[in-house]
Amino acid sequence: VLDEKQRKPALRMLTYGLHVLGAAHEGEAGAATVTWVTQGSFEPPLLVLGVKKDGYVYGLVRRSRKLALSLLLQDQLDVAKAFFKAPRLEEGRLAGRTFGTGVTGAPILDDAAAFLEGEVQSADETGDHAVVIARIVNAGVRREGAPLELRPTGMSYGG
Amino acid sequence: VLDEKQRKPALRMLTYGLHVLGAAHEGEAGAATVTWVTQGSFEPPLLVLGVKKDGYVYGLVRRSRKLALSLLLQDQLDVAKAFFKAPRLEEGRLAGRTFGTGVTGAPILDDAAAFLEGEVQSADETGDHAVVIARIVNAGVRREGAPLELRPTGMSYGG
Repeated sequence: VLDEKQRKPALRMLTYGLHVLGAAHEGEAGAATVTWVTQGSFEPPLLVLGVKKDGYVYGLVRRSRKLALSLLLQDQLDVAKAFFKAPRLEEGRLAGRTFGTGVTGAPILDDAAAFLEGEVQSADETGDHAVVIARIVNAGVRREGAPLELRPTGMSYGG
Repeated sequence: VLDEKQRKPALRMLTYGLHVLGAAHEGEAGAATVTWVTQGSFEPPLLVLGVKKDGYVYGLVRRSRKLALSLLLQDQLDVAKAFFKAPRLEEGRLAGRTFGTGVTGAPILDDAAAFLEGEVQSADETGDHAVVIARIVNAGVRREGAPLELRPTGMSYGG
């Protein structure tokens, strides 16, 4: 009964930010722009993400069971765009950008205005994106401001 | 290591809409405002929601394994506010508002600009909110426009 012509515009009414998901495992590191993110619980603090299942970053998340989400501000669309292609580690950088690590070892962009680190609790791999539920184990804010949102960019992800 | 003073502002940088989640079971019906919603996969189309575990609506979702999400437009904050207290069915209405049903039997507000109906695939009950993964089985758009977003209201949910 699912009408494909109704499904897309309805799903595109959902509201998202643009973030960069990083993961690392055994000397490898990668990061990719993600939009499907929500908090899932206050106690314990859970983060839920839809992550492209066949992507390089998900492979790292799957193996390491850890992740870091770099949060961006409104003036950082260029940063988000640099991670659309999910770059791998090159000369110690990701998409030419420097990063550090927190408690999980997953890359946190030096450009990040804030970050959330998580340990994977479960991942539902039914669909083309894995629904990852992670327990938040570390968080930080470096710079306050209006967060980068998807809708004002004119782009969409979903449908 | 999780610094509570860092965690709240970081989590509040995530971006959400305001929606009304409806569910029904054996003559009962309820609806409540929800913000923690994201798509979880394109194929199959999955919807992921964080739903207050001790709430009336989650009890209905849990028992019926079905749900409907009513999507609102920017000028419908009054509708979202009417469902903050998660009203139960009263004289055939919810918070004084009329509703219909689609294929799942879960209430869809007549006020809804669009809707998504889902069948529950799984629910992670680790936290104070259940992380519900639902397969989207029906969708509709009735009225196009700018969706109701949480941040511009000055309210927040998360942290």
